[in-house]
Amino acid sequence: MNHPVLTRADCLARDAADPLAALRERFDLPAGTIYLDGNSLGARPKAALARAQQVIAQEWGKDLITSWNTAGWFEMPRRLGDRLAPLLGAHAGEVVVTDTTSVNLFKALAAALALQAPHAERRTIVTERSNFPTDIYMAEGLAGWLQRGYTVRLVDTPEEIPAVLGPDTAVLMLTHVNYRTGLQHDMAALTALAHRAGAVTVWDLAHSAGAVPVDLHEANADFAVGCTYKYLNGGPGAPAFIWVPRRHQATFTQPLSGWWGHATPFAMASSFTAGEGIGRALCGTQPVVSLALVECGLDVFGATDMHAIRTKSLALTDLFIALVESRCAGHPLGLVTPREHPRRGSHVSFTHPHGYAVMQALIARGVIGDYREPAIMRFGFTPLYTSFTEVWDAVDVLKGILDEEAYDVNAARGAVT
Amino acid sequence: MNHPVLTRADCLARDAADPLAALRERFDLPAGTIYLDGNSLGARPKAALARAQQVIAQEWGKDLITSWNTAGWFEMPRRLGDRLAPLLGAHAGEVVVTDTTSVNLFKALAAALALQAPHAERRTIVTERSNFPTDIYMAEGLAGWLQRGYTVRLVDTPEEIPAVLGPDTAVLMLTHVNYRTGLQHDMAALTALAHRAGAVTVWDLAHSAGAVPVDLHEANADFAVGCTYKYLNGGPGAPAFIWVPRRHQATFTQPLSGWWGHATPFAMASSFTAGEGIGRALCGTQPVVSLALVECGLDVFGATDMHAIRTKSLALTDLFIALVESRCAGHPLGLVTPREHPRRGSHVSFTHPHGYAVMQALIARGVIGDYREPAIMRFGFTPLYTSFTEVWDAVDVLKGILDEEAYDVNAARGAVT
Repeated sequence: MNHPVLTRADCLARDAADPLAALRERFDLPAGTIYLDGNSLGARPKAALARAQQVIAQEWGKDLITSWNTAGWFEMPRRLGDRLAPLLGAHAGEVVVTDTTSVNLFKALAAALALQAPHAERRTIVTERSNFPTDIYMAEGLAGWLQRGYTVRLVDTPEEIPAVLGPDTAVLMLTHVNYRTGLQHDMAALTALAHRAGAVTVWDLAHSAGAVPVDLHEANADFAVGCTYKYLNGGPGAPAFIWVPRRHQATFTQPLSGWWGHATPFAMASSFTAGEGIGRALCGTQPVVSLALVECGLDVFGATDMHAIRTKSLALTDLFIALVESRCAGHPLGLVTPREHPRRGSHVSFTHPHGYAVMQALIARGVIGDYREPAIMRFGFTPLYTSFTEVWDAVDVLKGILDEEAYDVNAARGAVT
Repeated sequence: MNHPVLTRADCLARDAADPLAALRERFDLPAGTIYLDGNSLGARPKAALARAQQVIAQEWGKDLITSWNTAGWFEMPRRLGDRLAPLLGAHAGEVVVTDTTSVNLFKALAAALALQAPHAERRTIVTERSNFPTDIYMAEGLAGWLQRGYTVRLVDTPEEIPAVLGPDTAVLMLTHVNYRTGLQHDMAALTALAHRAGAVTVWDLAHSAGAVPVDLHEANADFAVGCTYKYLNGGPGAPAFIWVPRRHQATFTQPLSGWWGHATPFAMASSFTAGEGIGRALCGTQPVVSLALVECGLDVFGATDMHAIRTKSLALTDLFIALVESRCAGHPLGLVTPREHPRRGSHVSFTHPHGYAVMQALIARGVIGDYREPAIMRFGFTPLYTSFTEVWDAVDVLKGILDEEAYDVNAARGAVT
């Protein structure tokens, strides 16, 4: 994969030989656009429209309240969790799709701190300064409210992590693939290090689920959360997930003890008793329409496996890096994403002094990536629908913009999601 | 309204004179069904199907990531909150539609406790044993995790509340209209009592919003949360809402400090700084498709007002009570819901020794109400789409079932939502 493809014809040939190429037909992608932002919002599975119609017109409109039972609405968080589990190296009964990533992180982190509560000296939550901000914010929120000496310690580089883990560490909380750099942590190695130091791990799989092979049990991880609207193509803001391995379920406890987590929710008891198993990670009534669409994204994964997805992901990102570095040589681009395969996720980031303006120019020409402070252009590659020829064409557009200096360095900055 | 209508023809005449009758056309209701469960899941506004198609096919499918800005996805919690505010006696900039009722209650309760934190002796959260269970469970969760002596005190009757409020009370947390009995509390009077005792109030409006006139500012309430999928017809499990009046916004703080509540979410700062105003009640990324459908429900309210809705609601519930008591006289039915108008919400509950079996028989004959332990049959009346003739017909079916004893007292009990 380290030999750059030098012609568009080579890319066309790769697409012709791509075993995943047919899956693109299962997505609705706008004509005239090269969509390299599936790491932010995954494309729409065509099936989502009919599924929404079924839920809205039939299940809600006609069957009304009975659908909580007859259409399986109430069981959906568990059923979708069971379908998602194999993509994470998790077992059935260990995952629920529910709430938001932020809220699920709060639950997982609280449960991790509860496990450590007997060790009064363990009061530090270690994470990266470059972690996705909401993870840090949620940790700050939980630590601050508990008022028991918990602090959040931010490390500036992954290399610092081993030295920081120690007798004061309660939790190592990391995002598996960094949202900005695309760096993939070694989950098994870091989990082992954390355990050796007596710490518990919480992994955020937002940029991993459906993008890179994850094996939570193999890594012996403790808790995990993640997002369904990126590589899992579940729809904008679709409910997130939380994983609690069976070995931690009996002791799993978290403050958001809503009725969906109760042992007998319809007995309407006046005091909380946690249910068995993964159900105790649930809280309140879920947004059924958005939740149902998550299944349309998961269905596509049934036609392939994470090994095939990873093979193509690395081929796409290798190709992109090679083409940018060869065809845009001479421009001030800096590769941020690791070259080593095991340390790479499924997106590639390059810095450019005018990164924001260049990205705006790319978007104007139909190449959709996104921008992250500081100076980082981010390009996501979704093996289910991104083609090798699109990679060629995207670099071609980038080269044109850079060669012509066809970007407005004074472009006003809007909100970017 | 206290003169029972004695013939079906009278009900038809009332429907003909009903100024809200035309609004029924804006809902999709299944033929052959009398739907009296809008207090659990509101019926589907016809517009919801086209709106879902727009969000899924165009905004997600074609416009993809740009829709966070161009389609206003990011602003939707605030925009919908501003549209909902007038139904609650709230102002623009005081309400967001987001997360679940349980999660929002957690935020509101946390903020209320924070206001009381300087008063070390105020450590009791007062609520009713008959409150909707998740409210009690969330209070237990928050109190337990804070480990600062907070306790949840349950009163058995509303009449006990005044005597219980005292120097140890931090918060009076009540559901405005009881989910089981349909009793409506006097929000202004209880808030005044609470304030006199030095307590802060948190109101759950799940069975009030869109059902009865609410004036949060007039009542001088402190915090409120509620649900959009009951009388607001926002769709199954649609995101809930939270109200924080402007006078409490500057000090509003809660543990779920996710990136959507940050002052500058896209600056990706590595520490949390709460945003201004109601934004600090937000946490994580919201389920856009479900959220968008909330607007279809709110749109219907633009064609009427809460005064007209309340007038019809009382007429419907008066009629139902009168018809049941006159036509089903001799059967062991007990009215649970208050007869006095100011103390009644928009649903009516009757006990029957075989309440569960009778409700199953009603549902089998197309009259959809629901059952709540113990022995309570619950009938919800949504003035936007329930007709007077339906009330007649529903009582007719009930009378037939009771007269014929056409119910199975051994009916197996399934999960009921």
